[in-house]
Amino acid sequence: MSLVGKTGVVVRHIQRADSALIDELTQYGVATVHESQGRKGLLAPHLRPIQQDCAISGSAVTVLVAPGDNWMFHVAVEQCQPGDILVVAPSSPCSDGYFGDLLATSLQARGVRGLVLDAGVRDTRTLREMGFKVWSKAVYAQGTIKETLGSVNIPVICAGQLVNPGDVVLADDDGVVVVRRQELQTVVEAARKRADLEEAKRLRLANGELGLDIYAMRPRLAEKGLRYVDHLEQLED
Amino acid sequence: MSLVGKTGVVVRHIQRADSALIDELTQYGVATVHESQGRKGLLAPHLRPIQQDCAISGSAVTVLVAPGDNWMFHVAVEQCQPGDILVVAPSSPCSDGYFGDLLATSLQARGVRGLVLDAGVRDTRTLREMGFKVWSKAVYAQGTIKETLGSVNIPVICAGQLVNPGDVVLADDDGVVVVRRQELQTVVEAARKRADLEEAKRLRLANGELGLDIYAMRPRLAEKGLRYVDHLEQLED
Amino acid sequence: MSLVGKTGVVVRHIQRADSALIDELTQYGVATVHESQGRKGLLAPHLRPIQQDCAISGSAVTVLVAPGDNWMFHVAVEQCQPGDILVVAPSSPCSDGYFGDLLATSLQARGVRGLVLDAGVRDTRTLREMGFKVWSKAVYAQGTIKETLGSVNIPVICAGQLVNPGDVVLADDDGVVVVRRQELQTVVEAARKRADLEEAKRLRLANGELGLDIYAMRPRLAEKGLRYVDHLEQLED
Amino acid sequence: MSLVGKTGVVVRHIQRADSALIDELTQYGVATVHESQGRKGLLAPHLRPIQQDCAISGSAVTVLVAPGDNWMFHVAVEQCQPGDILVVAPSSPCSDGYFGDLLATSLQARGVRGLVLDAGVRDTRTLREMGFKVWSKAVYAQGTIKETLGSVNIPVICAGQLVNPGDVVLADDDGVVVVRRQELQTVVEAARKRADLEEAKRLRLANGELGLDIYAMRPRLAEKGLRYVDHLEQLED
Amino acid sequence: MSLVGKTGVVVRHIQRADSALIDELTQYGVATVHESQGRKGLLAPHLRPIQQDCAISGSAVTVLVAPGDNWMFHVAVEQCQPGDILVVAPSSPCSDGYFGDLLATSLQARGVRGLVLDAGVRDTRTLREMGFKVWSKAVYAQGTIKETLGSVNIPVICAGQLVNPGDVVLADDDGVVVVRRQELQTVVEAARKRADLEEAKRLRLANGELGLDIYAMRPRLAEKGLRYVDHLEQLED
Amino acid sequence: MSLVGKTGVVVRHIQRADSALIDELTQYGVATVHESQGRKGLLAPHLRPIQQDCAISGSAVTVLVAPGDNWMFHVAVEQCQPGDILVVAPSSPCSDGYFGDLLATSLQARGVRGLVLDAGVRDTRTLREMGFKVWSKAVYAQGTIKETLGSVNIPVICAGQLVNPGDVVLADDDGVVVVRRQELQTVVEAARKRADLEEAKRLRLANGELGLDIYAMRPRLAEKGLRYVDHLEQLED
Repeated sequence: MSLVGKTGVVVRHIQRADSALIDELTQYGVATVHESQGRKGLLAPHLRPIQQDCAISGSAVTVLVAPGDNWMFHVAVEQCQPGDILVVAPSSPCSDGYFGDLLATSLQARGVRGLVLDAGVRDTRTLREMGFKVWSKAVYAQGTIKETLGSVNIPVICAGQLVNPGDVVLADDDGVVVVRRQELQTVVEAARKRADLEEAKRLRLANGELGLDIYAMRPRLAEKGLRYVDHLEQLED
Repeated sequence: MSLVGKTGVVVRHIQRADSALIDELTQYGVATVHESQGRKGLLAPHLRPIQQDCAISGSAVTVLVAPGDNWMFHVAVEQCQPGDILVVAPSSPCSDGYFGDLLATSLQARGVRGLVLDAGVRDTRTLREMGFKVWSKAVYAQGTIKETLGSVNIPVICAGQLVNPGDVVLADDDGVVVVRRQELQTVVEAARKRADLEEAKRLRLANGELGLDIYAMRPRLAEKGLRYVDHLEQLED
Repeated sequence: MSLVGKTGVVVRHIQRADSALIDELTQYGVATVHESQGRKGLLAPHLRPIQQDCAISGSAVTVLVAPGDNWMFHVAVEQCQPGDILVVAPSSPCSDGYFGDLLATSLQARGVRGLVLDAGVRDTRTLREMGFKVWSKAVYAQGTIKETLGSVNIPVICAGQLVNPGDVVLADDDGVVVVRRQELQTVVEAARKRADLEEAKRLRLANGELGLDIYAMRPRLAEKGLRYVDHLEQLED
Repeated sequence: MSLVGKTGVVVRHIQRADSALIDELTQYGVATVHESQGRKGLLAPHLRPIQQDCAISGSAVTVLVAPGDNWMFHVAVEQCQPGDILVVAPSSPCSDGYFGDLLATSLQARGVRGLVLDAGVRDTRTLREMGFKVWSKAVYAQGTIKETLGSVNIPVICAGQLVNPGDVVLADDDGVVVVRRQELQTVVEAARKRADLEEAKRLRLANGELGLDIYAMRPRLAEKGLRYVDHLEQLED
Repeated sequence: MSLVGKTGVVVRHIQRADSALIDELTQYGVATVHESQGRKGLLAPHLRPIQQDCAISGSAVTVLVAPGDNWMFHVAVEQCQPGDILVVAPSSPCSDGYFGDLLATSLQARGVRGLVLDAGVRDTRTLREMGFKVWSKAVYAQGTIKETLGSVNIPVICAGQLVNPGDVVLADDDGVVVVRRQELQTVVEAARKRADLEEAKRLRLANGELGLDIYAMRPRLAEKGLRYVDHLEQLED
Repeated sequence: MSLVGKTGVVVRHIQRADSALIDELTQYGVATVHESQGRKGLLAPHLRPIQQDCAISGSAVTVLVAPGDNWMFHVAVEQCQPGDILVVAPSSPCSDGYFGDLLATSLQARGVRGLVLDAGVRDTRTLREMGFKVWSKAVYAQGTIKETLGSVNIPVICAGQLVNPGDVVLADDDGVVVVRRQELQTVVEAARKRADLEEAKRLRLANGELGLDIYAMRPRLAEKGLRYVDHLEQLED
């Protein structure tokens, strides 16, 4: 555990989860996956996408950076493989523009699918044109320097969640969720079941059935004391 | 007045305004309607749409929910009619993801036009694909529970404004405004006049006339002491 | 310097920079221009565009307004020329909706390219349809009054930066940057060079070369003590 | 209900609750009173006191003000009686310094106990020295004007809660809560009981008894599936 | 004007205003001085004091710092004289803990009266014990580095206001205001008059006279249409 | 690692660090300890104390709670020993008032030193009177429920930092820092040295020596290009 926040280290080899399982996550989306693993692993809602209506999943290559210093991005690129997602956390809160189109070009050349960054991004229009996906805390052009070491592929806390190198990250319009590498199989299976159940319910709801009936909520609501009246005026005396 | 915040109650029948008048509101937009009723009824600007360039209006079915608890959504669905808009306020500030595509399917099946929610929403991409309109305080996938009663169709305070069941809600890219049901006729008439006046002004402004002249502002500006100089340097001694 | 914040004054004639140089700025974008002038002049990131994927540049016509009072917009229109951008700062923090489609029609009739406003804007859908570009602190329909004088074409502090009348403003999806009129030539030349260099680097990065090698970072990283290990476990004793 | 937000009106006579009951509220504090009335009436937590370790209660004289305009404070003073608390809400969000030591002197001369203001306050040191109590959204010296009418003694929405003239307001270090005038008797009785119960529990807890046992929580926790293990390592396989 | 934001420069000699006039400012306080110079010069309200119930004034020694880098504080100390106040602005928004008790010791040894810092401070308890006064944007212990040049004694934008070296800064519980050095005499004279007038008004208000009468507001309120009614019910039909 | 966020578990026995070392931390304070362990472990600055000028240190008993649900506090009390500090993190962002004087009485009876809570607290005046120390994200009286299981003594992410049960927590006016249990000895030794060094520097600085000379900064500043000029005017051509 003491590795969280350790600076000056690059870990070359990380274990990655099964790529078919990783890819399957995008079918279910962040909300469903978050539910399927017991409502954990959801990054804070201040992480927002710079593009709309897309989802990516991949293996986390984690990066710890100093505030206002993007040096470790360059170190991280070398550690990336096709299918990875860069997950970057500054050691103290920062909104500077750590990342732009040049770094995106480099990551894209290595097959990286996108970036999750608890800080600022710039060149956002070009990034959308390139098709490089980003979730960030801010859009801000403020430049950064290259003076201070961070780390690559150690556990980091990103937007309030622990992300280990090789954990699986799923990002869509709702935000970002992390799945432990070791739990991916279980989570995917749970997500499949949940998706099937939701599909069944969706059909019934689309046909006008009520959740009150499908989920048999009426008795428990009554037990809690829910009271129906015909008109508001009945309550006012 | 003491009904605001009352929990454990569902009101079955509410009065709705004339549907033609309700629908007409979308022609004028939130800014014009807000002005037409004397600059009142505007919900706080933290409510933002998840879709772009659309407007809806409808009768408010109001919902009071506990923080992190979306049970009352299911109770509310049953009370909705075609043309309604669900207006939801948590009893304490909360950004959790109360609402997603299943509830939207259920509401859409009943003809509900959209949701105004002073909390978080999820499944946003699917909601856009379904054409179900949402204005919310946050996009956040965090799940909610079903343990605590709220109410349906009592007066609620949503994003800083009182909304009574049956009041008329208009939402567009600028935000959300509420019109009292009893005042709708008056407000629509005022909006029609304002829209006509604005159209006339727009033509004159587009032709290069100045607001200074159209609104005869010059004398009052002079009276307040506005001073014109030719160059900045004239001010610097 | 004592002119900053002075009220009740309109300056009729301001010096504008060379229009070809002004226009050229949009080729480089906010991030590159900000870098090319030594990382200064960037307005705070709370200014966000209401439209996506566009850039404008122009000469600043500056406006100081009272909180909740948009009177000076009308005064400012008369001082605008084709190619200008209105830069508006309230004398105390305010999110009210100072600006909508009528004022935009008036500005557009005079050839103004857009608005940078450290306050709220309304009629955003119509503004997008008109093609009038806006960067603002908020989208909010709340109306304003016309009672208090501000100034036009004096130096203002907008979103944390000093903007002089006639300074050049560039705005794109990343935000807004101001370039001093007297420095425009120098900054454009620096931006050209930077853009050329970036293009060259982009090609190398796209071909898979690493920033670590292109920028010769490895020796300095080693000197700072960066340590590579094969596996995370090697760090956990 | 349509009176909320109405401008240009002053109501001279309001009904006030029994003064002994009002005064008794300060014995229980905001948290207890909020609980005693079923967890309603709590104003948003952005209202903070400018002084520490004190509580006041009183009858609400309500004031609606325009943003950046404190004219109606002067109108309101005349409507105040000994034991009142001024409750002020701007018609759109504003942090300007509406209130300082002169207005406090005037209110103090009339026996007003304090101010609850969803905006900014200034002269805070002098206010503390005078012993005039204030809860506000901000401390900010920015001046306001006197140009636009609001109202006095109509229902207002202050920090997310409806406050009617004559409702009872209690403010302490935890924030502000409103009690409907008609419910005061009931709420005070509930608060008395709750305070007695809490006192009894406090003694048992101070003696080392556990809430788990006092509230008999263990069976329900077990039923929900709570699992005790001796060591963290037992969970990690 | 182009000096704002210039890095890498230290200006050794600055002009300071008359020390008796500077000292006199503390008698009037931030709100009065802000009013006395026409409601300008007020820094943003996110600057808050770490101590209570004190006021300082002094000549601004200005410091521009890089985000997360406090190197220039040490450079600035040498330029300080008794009676100065350090005014520090980072080149991009930052909350790191730039300043603590050691730097305060050094500044105190030179007779510096306090610090106005648009960033974070640490060692706050020790600073209070030392009697060194600080107004800052945050309290945060996060350390900073010493790698990047800023400047000393050039014009800076601090919390939304331009501050020139040698300008006069007044800070109290309400916040911070800057007075141009060249305008100090005029502002002090206006503040004296305002303070006298306020004292006279305070006495009348304390005696129960109403602002409505002292300021003769009734006719203008009537002209604007203010309407008095005896009871709320008269408005509700 | 997969234990972070796990719900429904209570760990009875945790390892605690040496109590003399724990206690010694309060001599150095949060800023010094944060520095002494390489600038890691600092919780986010939104955690603020409800009291002033005090410091506590202790062994972390960690608690994971559901949003708006304080049930697990009661479970946690039983696991506490004298000298512990309760460290509480909600599973999604929440400002509700989880904690008040009754729970504090219970914790105080067991010798617990204080609470670090990434959510809201209430009864703050009473807590100060009791001498029970709290650092929280908000002061808010909003009540919570007891419906959903969390966990006690598993690793949690609190205000952006990983805290393991038995880790050592230090809190003072500057905020909160966590020290890994296994690293406490090393960190205390580093803090001792740092405190000694700082004391020596403090004496020199108090005597008027400059940091520029003590830290021999002048050559490196010159090398970076720092330029001294006598007057601002020399820069303006």
